Amino acid sequence: MRESIRTGARQVGQSLESEAALAAEYRVAPGTVREALRLLVSEGTLGGRRGARKTVLRRPRPAAVAEEFRSFAQWASAHGRTPGGHVIEQNWRIAGEETAAALKVDPRARVLRVLRVRLLDGEKVMVERTSYPEQLGEMVEKIPGDAASVSRSLAQQHGIVFAGADHVFSATVCGQQDAALLGVARGRPLLRHLRRSRDSAGRPLEISEDRYLANILSVAMSNGRNVNPISWLTADEPNWF
Amino acid sequence: MRESIRTGARQVGQSLESEAALAAEYRVAPGTVREALRLLVSEGTLGGRRGARKTVLRRPRPAAVAEEFRSFAQWASAHGRTPGGHVIEQNWRIAGEETAAALKVDPRARVLRVLRVRLLDGEKVMVERTSYPEQLGEMVEKIPGDAASVSRSLAQQHGIVFAGADHVFSATVCGQQDAALLGVARGRPLLRHLRRSRDSAGRPLEISEDRYLANILSVAMSNGRNVNPISWLTADEPNWF
Repeated sequence: MRESIRTGARQVGQSLESEAALAAEYRVAPGTVREALRLLVSEGTLGGRRGARKTVLRRPRPAAVAEEFRSFAQWASAHGRTPGGHVIEQNWRIAGEETAAALKVDPRARVLRVLRVRLLDGEKVMVERTSYPEQLGEMVEKIPGDAASVSRSLAQQHGIVFAGADHVFSATVCGQQDAALLGVARGRPLLRHLRRSRDSAGRPLEISEDRYLANILSVAMSNGRNVNPISWLTADEPNWF
Repeated sequence: MRESIRTGARQVGQSLESEAALAAEYRVAPGTVREALRLLVSEGTLGGRRGARKTVLRRPRPAAVAEEFRSFAQWASAHGRTPGGHVIEQNWRIAGEETAAALKVDPRARVLRVLRVRLLDGEKVMVERTSYPEQLGEMVEKIPGDAASVSRSLAQQHGIVFAGADHVFSATVCGQQDAALLGVARGRPLLRHLRRSRDSAGRPLEISEDRYLANILSVAMSNGRNVNPISWLTADEPNWF
C-alpha cells in the first residue's frame, strides 16, 4: 500500500477500498490489512475515523520505508548520501551514576566511551560522544574506526536491532575541542542531540551526546496522538533518560 | 493498565496476565486489550514479543497520560509549572509559497502571523512566530493576548484538537529582536524548533518557528519501530513540511 501511494498509483486525497477488498488485493488476512492501515495512520500517511475507509493524506516519507528506527548513517545511505565516520579516541571508563542510570547498568560497571566525527558526503557534520554498556562495547571495539555505520555492523555481525530511541534537543556553542574536530571557529551555534537507543525489549544499547553544525544538519521527527508525546525539559530537572 | 504501572500496582519487570485475564479484569473486549497492549508497547512502557505475554519495562512517562499531543502550555500545567504568554504583535499576511505549502493553503490566502513570548514560571523562555490558516486565525485573533494556552482555548471554545505534529530541530544564535524580546544578550545559542501541528484528519492547524533559550529549555521525544521515524535534514534540502 505504501509503495502504491509513493508511486502515485494511489493519490493524495483518494479514499482506500474496504478492508476486505484490500485483503483480497494483497492476498493477506484482514487482520494484516488492519495492522497495515493502523501503521499508515499512525505515521500520518493515511487519515480517517476508526472503522471508516481511510483517505490518503500525504505521500509517505522516505524515512518510513524500512519500518524501523534508522541511525544517521542508515538515513544517509537511504537518501543517496554518503555517510562516513572517524573514531578519534575510544576508552573504557567506569560508568558513574548518570551514565549508569541512562544505560541501566551498575555505576561501577565499565562502559566503552567513543569520540567520533561523523561525515556526510565527505564533509564533517557532527561530533558524537557515545557510551556503550560492557557487552556491546566489546563488540564495538572490534569494529574498524572508519566504519560508516556502527549500528549496521552490530546488526549484521551480532543481530542487534536498534528498535527505538529517546531524544533530547537543545542548543550549545562550539567549544575548543569541537571546533578542532569539526574544523570551524569556536562560538558557532551547535544543535545538541542527546539520544538513547534501545532494542525491541527496551534495553538501552547506547547513550550519546551528538553535536551538529547549525545550518548544515537538522533533525526532524513527527509525533501523533497515542504515540510518542513530546516533552519539554528545564535545566533544573533530573535527567530525562 | 497504565495507571496500575504508574502507581506501582504492577512493577517494572513484572509479566502481565494473559489477554483474556486482562479483558476480564478491565471488563473490556479482547480487541480493546490488544489495542491497549500495542499502544503501551509502542510507547516503550511494555515489552515482549508479539503474541507473548508482555513485561513492564518502565513506568509510563507523565507526558503520556493524556494520550494526546500536548502543547508547551499543557505540558507545563501538567507538571505543576505555570505557563504564560504575551502576544507582541499579530497581523494578517499573504501566505506566500513556503508557508502555503506547509499549511496546505493557497499561496494567495491570508494567514494570521503571531509573534509571542512564552513564559515558564514567570521567566521568558522562548519566542514563537506562528502562522495560522484563515479560519483558525479568525478564532486566534479573538483570544486574549496574554492567554497561557492558545491550543486549550481553541479546544474548549471550538472543539479543535491538536492531534499531532511534525518537528525540525536545529540551532541558531540570538539576534537583535530575540535578544530584546527575551531580555538577554545577542549571540547566545538558541534551539530552533520548527513545528507544524495537525488535527486528527492530518490537516495543518499552525506552523511555527520557536526559539528557546539554551540551557533553560530542551525538547524531548521518543520514537520507536513502526512509528514516527527520525529523519535528518541538510541545509540544501527543500522544506520538510
